[in-house]
Amino acid sequence: RCGFADSQRYDPDVEYFRQWRDGGVTAVQVTVTTWESARPTLDTISRWYRVFREYEEYVVLATCGEDVRIAKAKNKTAVILGMQNTSSFEDDLGLVEVFHRLGIRVAQATYNLQNFVGASCYDPADAGLTRFGRFVLAEMNRVGMVMDTSHVGDRTTLDCIEHSSRPVVVTHANPSFFFEHKRNKSNDVLRAISSNGGI
Amino acid sequence: RCGFADSQRYDPDVEYFRQWRDGGVTAVQVTVTTWESARPTLDTISRWYRVFREYEEYVVLATCGEDVRIAKAKNKTAVILGMQNTSSFEDDLGLVEVFHRLGIRVAQATYNLQNFVGASCYDPADAGLTRFGRFVLAEMNRVGMVMDTSHVGDRTTLDCIEHSSRPVVVTHANPSFFFEHKRNKSNDVLRAISSNGGI
Repeated sequence: RCGFADSQRYDPDVEYFRQWRDGGVTAVQVTVTTWESARPTLDTISRWYRVFREYEEYVVLATCGEDVRIAKAKNKTAVILGMQNTSSFEDDLGLVEVFHRLGIRVAQATYNLQNFVGASCYDPADAGLTRFGRFVLAEMNRVGMVMDTSHVGDRTTLDCIEHSSRPVVVTHANPSFFFEHKRNKSNDVLRAISSNGGI
Repeated sequence: RCGFADSQRYDPDVEYFRQWRDGGVTAVQVTVTTWESARPTLDTISRWYRVFREYEEYVVLATCGEDVRIAKAKNKTAVILGMQNTSSFEDDLGLVEVFHRLGIRVAQATYNLQNFVGASCYDPADAGLTRFGRFVLAEMNRVGMVMDTSHVGDRTTLDCIEHSSRPVVVTHANPSFFFEHKRNKSNDVLRAISSNGGI
């Protein structure tokens, strides 16, 4: 183990890194935020930097597609830093670029609870992407950070797709037609995701 | 004015940017920390990012020598982001790399008061670079961030020079032989600075 205490976040372990490499895993997105504000997120990110130095034989930070291809060619697993919550941006639009410069390439609008940006899939009502949320999404579009809608409510998800100038993704959920669950996505959402080039 | 409230920090103003350009100023180091911890420093840095976008006609962020040469060729002033205190690193060595990735290239050991790293030129006694300070200096050496000793006590300054694998600088002070003042530097310090390639 590499010293991460919070079980909600991915706990880096060299044993996993070996399995990724031996199993031929090309790229992994790891979570640096579930509920945290900006400051503790810096701790988590800095620990990943240390992991990249100490376990460079196995894993490498990827901040663009070319980084993933280079990692693959070197028989390493590319690691993409992602957030499962926009909580790390707090109420400060300027932090989107700060975290982008630190290597974050994916951020989920919210994680299981309404926040400044939008509603989760578990909230009793979903009024859609907020006014601040639209600013955050536009800033993510500008700097090049993917909007993830996995734990996000349907209306907020559809608003993200409508207002995004870039593809929106669902990184970890299933189709509702396969299993009915608040975390899973309706056909309407799946069609909308694909209509703007998302996955 | 571009919206910075703290008069201790450099207050960016397009009128200054015009003067720099018209006066042929090649590069300027601006201060993003005097007393702040990590979180408010992110705000100041993100506002500079915005300045670089909105006033790209005049100023450009420089993170290496080549950036300065490119700015000069384009008739713009290169801006180097610097800290006048290691307070932004708090007690967390991992934040040195975080702030380096955000573009910080210079950090002063301390600003007018003893901190976790060392003593200021105004402290009643100077016990030199602390144990944590040696770790911080080694990490700054590793990532490529210059140690500035302008407001720093003599013993801490000499320790920085002794323990640094890279040149140490005094960005803003005068020689004591010119004017005797706590902020100014003795001949011993000046010789030591130059002996390791510093300025």
